Amino acid sequence: MSLIRVGVLGARGRMGAEVVRAVEAADDMEIVAQVDTGDWLFDVADAGAQVIVDFTHPDVVMDNLRFCVDQGIHAVVGTSGFDDAKLASLREWLAAKPDLGVLIAPNFALGAVLSMKFAQAAAKYFDTVEIIELHHNRKADAPSGTAAHTARLIAQARAAAGLGEVPDATTSEVDGARGALVDDIRVHSVRMSGLVAHQEVILGGTGETLTLRHDSLDRTSFMPGVLHGVRAVLDRPGLVVGLENVLEL
Amino acid sequence: MSLIRVGVLGARGRMGAEVVRAVEAADDMEIVAQVDTGDWLFDVADAGAQVIVDFTHPDVVMDNLRFCVDQGIHAVVGTSGFDDAKLASLREWLAAKPDLGVLIAPNFALGAVLSMKFAQAAAKYFDTVEIIELHHNRKADAPSGTAAHTARLIAQARAAAGLGEVPDATTSEVDGARGALVDDIRVHSVRMSGLVAHQEVILGGTGETLTLRHDSLDRTSFMPGVLHGVRAVLDRPGLVVGLENVLEL
Amino acid sequence: MSLIRVGVLGARGRMGAEVVRAVEAADDMEIVAQVDTGDWLFDVADAGAQVIVDFTHPDVVMDNLRFCVDQGIHAVVGTSGFDDAKLASLREWLAAKPDLGVLIAPNFALGAVLSMKFAQAAAKYFDTVEIIELHHNRKADAPSGTAAHTARLIAQARAAAGLGEVPDATTSEVDGARGALVDDIRVHSVRMSGLVAHQEVILGGTGETLTLRHDSLDRTSFMPGVLHGVRAVLDRPGLVVGLENVLEL
Amino acid sequence: MSLIRVGVLGARGRMGAEVVRAVEAADDMEIVAQVDTGDWLFDVADAGAQVIVDFTHPDVVMDNLRFCVDQGIHAVVGTSGFDDAKLASLREWLAAKPDLGVLIAPNFALGAVLSMKFAQAAAKYFDTVEIIELHHNRKADAPSGTAAHTARLIAQARAAAGLGEVPDATTSEVDGARGALVDDIRVHSVRMSGLVAHQEVILGGTGETLTLRHDSLDRTSFMPGVLHGVRAVLDRPGLVVGLENVLEL
Repeated sequence: MSLIRVGVLGARGRMGAEVVRAVEAADDMEIVAQVDTGDWLFDVADAGAQVIVDFTHPDVVMDNLRFCVDQGIHAVVGTSGFDDAKLASLREWLAAKPDLGVLIAPNFALGAVLSMKFAQAAAKYFDTVEIIELHHNRKADAPSGTAAHTARLIAQARAAAGLGEVPDATTSEVDGARGALVDDIRVHSVRMSGLVAHQEVILGGTGETLTLRHDSLDRTSFMPGVLHGVRAVLDRPGLVVGLENVLEL
Repeated sequence: MSLIRVGVLGARGRMGAEVVRAVEAADDMEIVAQVDTGDWLFDVADAGAQVIVDFTHPDVVMDNLRFCVDQGIHAVVGTSGFDDAKLASLREWLAAKPDLGVLIAPNFALGAVLSMKFAQAAAKYFDTVEIIELHHNRKADAPSGTAAHTARLIAQARAAAGLGEVPDATTSEVDGARGALVDDIRVHSVRMSGLVAHQEVILGGTGETLTLRHDSLDRTSFMPGVLHGVRAVLDRPGLVVGLENVLEL
Repeated sequence: MSLIRVGVLGARGRMGAEVVRAVEAADDMEIVAQVDTGDWLFDVADAGAQVIVDFTHPDVVMDNLRFCVDQGIHAVVGTSGFDDAKLASLREWLAAKPDLGVLIAPNFALGAVLSMKFAQAAAKYFDTVEIIELHHNRKADAPSGTAAHTARLIAQARAAAGLGEVPDATTSEVDGARGALVDDIRVHSVRMSGLVAHQEVILGGTGETLTLRHDSLDRTSFMPGVLHGVRAVLDRPGLVVGLENVLEL
Repeated sequence: MSLIRVGVLGARGRMGAEVVRAVEAADDMEIVAQVDTGDWLFDVADAGAQVIVDFTHPDVVMDNLRFCVDQGIHAVVGTSGFDDAKLASLREWLAAKPDLGVLIAPNFALGAVLSMKFAQAAAKYFDTVEIIELHHNRKADAPSGTAAHTARLIAQARAAAGLGEVPDATTSEVDGARGALVDDIRVHSVRMSGLVAHQEVILGGTGETLTLRHDSLDRTSFMPGVLHGVRAVLDRPGLVVGLENVLEL
């Protein structure tokens, strides 16, 4: 079996360097180009890359992708900052290349993505649900983007199933005790020394609860998802947003 | 909308009595017959039941089902003790009634069933997985039937994905520390006052873990699953084994 | 060994009835009187009770205790509603009876009491701490009284150790995400079907967290603490408030 | 206030280097000497160290301590391998120096030490107790040393309180399901990618459970305990084994 030829953009950044290590350790791929600020992007094409992985910066990622699409190179993208306009441009570019795939994912941790997916699938079977996310205490925003996204997915699933608001008998509350409402789903944010990134979705029904918990220790947790994306994008032409859309469940 | 007409077999048993209460509390069904030892089974047919729920005994359940199939009444069955021979008989009886459905489920707790389903779906994405089940300390067997069944499902999913044995570096072990092997999956059984029925499936990959935990407080936790089964069996002709097969995920 | 002679006040209430069952099941005690509304309180004295257990009502508990103190009967009290004035009266009454003990406890669950005690002891060794309490969704107030009390104990322990406010880098918050502040300690309240009464105190320091979790299934969880109180009060003259003050740790 | 003058032995090892960083970051201490293989031990005395921290090797630690005791330098020791003979020698040496303290601790993680201490204190109030320890899957031994030590402490506490064996109704067990018996306490060892070092002690009584959980992310979790030891040893002459003995609880 021939190896998948991978180029890494942002190869000297923290995430990019992890990607290089992960690709090198994988049996079915090889690194053919490592590019960062100041390097020629053409190196990637010259080296015959089939797929690039991009962990760069919102300011440069669209140029990178324009180049890849032109050169017929698939792309797996962890860089943030994609809005509707950027996604529309990407779709337009890809329309001309029916065999080419681009996968953009805000979160490559398989456990996080599966946890969201399962929360969404289970939501319609339980009348109550809340989210607790726990992070290190240097984090500036609360709730986390992942928790807010999870809340939105759960809210959509409940709406689709005809479930109304989560019933709540609270009549006397110290401000904030019952958490934040994100799309009418309660989210609680804990900040603490000694934590990294953790999330619990608790679903409660008659006489039982189901808890989906994800614990992430460090950025290496993204690597299995990135490698999975590299393998998957070869057979998934067009634009795919979200790692969950290339998982088989 | 007309109500679903439900008969309960074993209506004076602990589970049967819960089913009666649950059906009575549901908006879309009504109890039309309650039958137990010493009652006429024909009452169920006379009352015009569309579906029966059977929580009786392995010795009588096949007679009950023979009767229901003859009378064209759908069945949702929580009674245990179905082996291959019994299932084959059931399939044969149902072959003559193409519109009729029978749903047999060893576990009606939605959370337990979803937890197993999710463990099965996630298994191929993590190199390591173990199960911890925790029950009250009057339980005689270890591991629990649900844990053993979950281990089997995980083992099948790993095999299907070409994953080998779960890697384990243990070279020095106090007997039993690493748990029981069920289909090569490690299962740990905790027995404790103050617990009811709980299970954790922990899946670990690079830098992250995903934990699926189910907590069950009492037998009312079976009722949403039973009601879901009653609704589903009307549109699912043939024999279905396992509540997971009538859930939409 | 002679048995401890116990009278139960409020013996036909839900808690009282549990106390009767628990005393009857204990090897070292016997029930000598069961009194409720409409019964003669003198029955307790006539029966030779050494200790009474009172789960009655704020309106009658002071009369009950006045009677017990006069008769030289020790008391273990789970009835709520004791303010400073009532406690002062009790102390005055007891001053005249140097051998007599009264134990009043807002919470008899040993696990809850130990959990609070441990949180208080550990607080000074961690720079960050938060509380998550989880209850069934029929509960009207948030946070729970136990969580608020725990927060207060932790805050006192931090102050005594010269620790300042818990450091928090949050600059952007959806209202309520970071919980309620009770004495400057963050408390998060989850309400859910399928839960009973649960609390987690999470303490975080450099590279580690310590979690103290209490799960309570039902009111039987109070009984070991009540029995412990009955044994302890015999040797603890004077007024004691809080079960933690008769535990040996 | 003058700073505590600290010397580090094994300063270029992984733990030693962390100690250097931690002491430098502390407000109340300063590093005056860093010594490792090939350096002069006398540097520590010349630099006027009041306390040394030793993370070296069982082969050299006794020589280091002989030197420190002779020079009147207090010592905090994380090096392993102390048996009764070595401890006896240390006590003999210290007898001649009534003001000098040596603290030896197998585990400096405050959370781990507190968790053990609390388990020991709570043990007598619950009829059932089990330990689950979870570690990364490169670990060779099961159960962990900390879990075995915790089991021993719990067993002693139960014995002292006159509690017999933990009641267990298991009559049918797949080998190993119920864990290892360490001093008659059940211990379960989970090994998994994505974990570091974690331990849960679950105590169960009537209708409730108390769970003490410790999660450790990396060796920095030892540093607050080491610093606490450095401060405490100055006022604790003689030999102290176990960080728990210099904590105020």
